[in-house]
Parts: sequence; structure tokens; C-alpha cells
Amino acid sequence: MHPLLKKKGFVIDIDGVIGRSVEPIKEGVNGVKKLIELGKKVVFVSNNSTRSRRILIQRLKSFGLDFGEESIVSATHATARFIAREKEGAKVFTTGEEGLKEELLNAGLKIVDYEDAEYLVVGSNRKIDYDLMTKALRCCLRGTRYIATNPDKIFPSENGPTPGTGMIIGALYWMTGRMPDVIVGKPSKVIMLEALEKLNLSAEDVVVVGDQIEVDVVAGKNIGSTTLLVLTGVANKSDVERSDIKPDYVAESLESLFS
Amino acid sequence: MHPLLKKKGFVIDIDGVIGRSVEPIKEGVNGVKKLIELGKKVVFVSNNSTRSRRILIQRLKSFGLDFGEESIVSATHATARFIAREKEGAKVFTTGEEGLKEELLNAGLKIVDYEDAEYLVVGSNRKIDYDLMTKALRCCLRGTRYIATNPDKIFPSENGPTPGTGMIIGALYWMTGRMPDVIVGKPSKVIMLEALEKLNLSAEDVVVVGDQIEVDVVAGKNIGSTTLLVLTGVANKSDVERSDIKPDYVAESLESLFS
Repeated sequence: MHPLLKKKGFVIDIDGVIGRSVEPIKEGVNGVKKLIELGKKVVFVSNNSTRSRRILIQRLKSFGLDFGEESIVSATHATARFIAREKEGAKVFTTGEEGLKEELLNAGLKIVDYEDAEYLVVGSNRKIDYDLMTKALRCCLRGTRYIATNPDKIFPSENGPTPGTGMIIGALYWMTGRMPDVIVGKPSKVIMLEALEKLNLSAEDVVVVGDQIEVDVVAGKNIGSTTLLVLTGVANKSDVERSDIKPDYVAESLESLFS
Repeated sequence: MHPLLKKKGFVIDIDGVIGRSVEPIKEGVNGVKKLIELGKKVVFVSNNSTRSRRILIQRLKSFGLDFGEESIVSATHATARFIAREKEGAKVFTTGEEGLKEELLNAGLKIVDYEDAEYLVVGSNRKIDYDLMTKALRCCLRGTRYIATNPDKIFPSENGPTPGTGMIIGALYWMTGRMPDVIVGKPSKVIMLEALEKLNLSAEDVVVVGDQIEVDVVAGKNIGSTTLLVLTGVANKSDVERSDIKPDYVAESLESLFS
């Protein structure tokens, strides 16, 4: 038996591990099913900043995986939880899409225009425009507390590279010299601690599984968990050799833990 | 007589010197009229990246100043001239507005979609959207030669600060690590050399007049001209004292050269 299968819980990245956009990765999906059969606790963590957990649950279902909200931590959800813990019912202005707004409202936060905002929440938006950027700029200039859902620079869409949340972070940094006060998504500890809380396990009892060294492996190391890099997504073997950041384990896929 | 009035030519900034957006600055407009009466050669230089020279001429006319295209260098025009000199009839993709496109076409360049572009021309656009940013991102990733109209971070509009061209530069830098290969607008020499060519004078024969130390004074120093900072715009006396960059002369307004 693979030594990782002695751990109690698994924190699993979605894109590049169990799916590529709307397409399932068979070896990833099978791996999850086998973990569940073994009685392991599982939580999925996604840096996606435009979808609510509800949408991610539907996607998992389309892959043949049946999980509820308690098993999903998205950057949208973790951002909303983080702010609600800091200030219950806080007033937030966001650059983000409906999926992020849904999570902010679900956490009891109020969505307001920028003049009244206690928080600026930056998340990617495929309908970003000059007006939204102007409002975010003015929040930065006013010193509004500034939270970003994730630091992802480029999002690999079906038809090629598209801007990630980092586009807005970079634009605001260039204009104002301000970086987010808190970045929630991987490799930040914020989203990972939320995942541990969902599992009700401590860091040493879990394996952090992902396909990106700089994102998933670093996130795992940031909380002191054991890390598994799978080669079904972005990283390949030569990336691992070249990188200074070494995952504890490397596997062809999540399912290959069982072979 | 003020020593600067011995110089043959004046390179004059528009915003903060002779106007504030659509409102004229009386002392600036009078100063220009007196320079003309003295037989001085005058050229106006603007970092504006959304207006063609045609529009700037209309604005000067509304201030009571009657000048033609030969007396205006805008970042839009200088960008178009710069590219046309490098490659006649080049194919360009631009993030910019109609004013920039008008100048690019006037210079004999072809406006194309990003896949066919030999040049990426970044200029501010109040209708910027995710699609335009995606195309600019892909140009950067492909290594397309990248020219920016100006480096301005924030544009002070009538109702408050709004994003300048720098918003796009910062976003692209953050996502790809690429800065523009050439920035045309002040403080770059590119736009200033275009102004000297319009005057048909050498740098030592002209005075560079502006209201911003980091923009206009630096631009003047970059070509080795004498610089005059006027206090009708952004900078005030304490800014001058605090700055390491010292203008050769400081005056309350352009007209105060005559008092």
C-alpha cells in the first residue's frame, strides 16, 4: 500500500487533477472514488474566483462525484468566510462575478458601491470594464481594506490563455503601489486552513494533492502538510527536476496511488 | 526680460499649463499669445492617448488659440509616426480608442486583429474589456513588438481619479513579465524628439514647459533642453523643494515670464 494512504484526509485540487475545465480526468475521478472506499476524508479546493460552490458541486456531479457544500472550498467561499470572520455583516465592494457575489451574500456580507465599502474584494470578472476598474482604483487610493480571491495571473481557457485575477491585482499595484492586504487562494494559507477546518483534521493528518508546484505544492508546504504532485495537469517530470520546490511525492495520477 | 525669452522655441504641455480638461487656464493662454507676438516658435505636447490631434486642435480653439496640426504632438500621433518610421504600413493591434486609431491610420498603418499583428499598441481605452485584455495578453505571450502611448498611471478626470494607460501596462507586466519595448509619451525622448522635429530646432534652442516634475521636467532633461515648471497644474512649491529633480526655472504661470 502507498504510504500516503495511511493519512486520514486529502485536500484535492480540481483543475488538472480530477478535471480539465468541463472534461473529467478519469484517473483522478477513479482515485477519489477509491479514497472514499478506503474511508478517507476528502475536501476539494479550487482557486476559481468566478464560481460559487453550488456550481462546482454541479461540475463534480457531471464527473460522477457526489459531494455536498461541506466538501468544497472555493476561493469565492473562502474569501467570504474570511471577511465574515473579521467583520460580521461587513460592507464590500467587489470587482467579481455573480459566483463570488453569491458566496459573499451567503456569508451575510452586504454588497455596496465603492464609496460605502469597508472591503474591496478583487476577483476575476469576464465583464470587467473601465468603470469597475475606476471604482477599485478609488478604493485603493482611499485605503479600503483589500482582499483578493487568488493571485492567478493567467487562466488557461479552452481557447487559449486569458487574464486571471492577477490582471486586476497587477493593474492596481501599478497605479497605486498597493498589493492586497490578504490573498485568499492558493498558495495562501487562508484557503488551506479553511480546508482543514472542513475536514476537522490537523495539517499533519492530511495530504495536499495538486498539479501545480508553485500553487498546490507550495500551499501544502505553507501549512506543513505532506504534498503530492500529480502529472495529469500543468506540471511534468522535468518541471519537478528543475524546481527548487520539491513535493514529498510525485505520481502519474491520483489513481496511481492504488497501483 | 526673462532669460527664457531669449530661446527660439517652446515645447508646451497642455493639461495644467493652458487648460484643465475643457476649461482654459487664462494665464497659460495669455502666455502663449505673448510668445507668439514675440515671434517664438511653439509646439504643444500632450500625453493624451485617446484623442487625435484634430480633437486637440478643437480644444485649443475653444481656449482662443488658433493652431494647426503642425503645432501639435500628441502621444497618439507620435506613436503612429514612430511605428511608421520603423516599418512603413505595419500591421498593428491596439487596445486604444478611436482617437489613437485615427492617428495610426493617418500614418499609413493597418489596424488588424491580434493574431496578425506585428505591433501591439497599448493606449488607454474607456471601453476596455476582458476581450481586449485577452488579445493584448496573447500578443505579449507571442512576443509581438509592444509600444505604449504613455506611462501615465492615473488620469485626473473631472469627477475624480480614473485609470490611465498605465493600468494596462501594469496588468500586462503582472501577467507576463513584459514591459513595453518602447514608451512614446513623456518623459520618454520619443515624443520630445518628435516635438523638436516639428519646431525644426535643436534641444538647446527650446524651453520645455510643463506642470509635472516627473513628467515634463524629466522629459525636458532627457533631451537636454532648458526646463520651466509652472505652478498652474499638479506641482506646487513644496513639491519642487522636496524633489531631487530640479527644473531650471519655476514660474507661477506661463504668463508670469512677462511680468
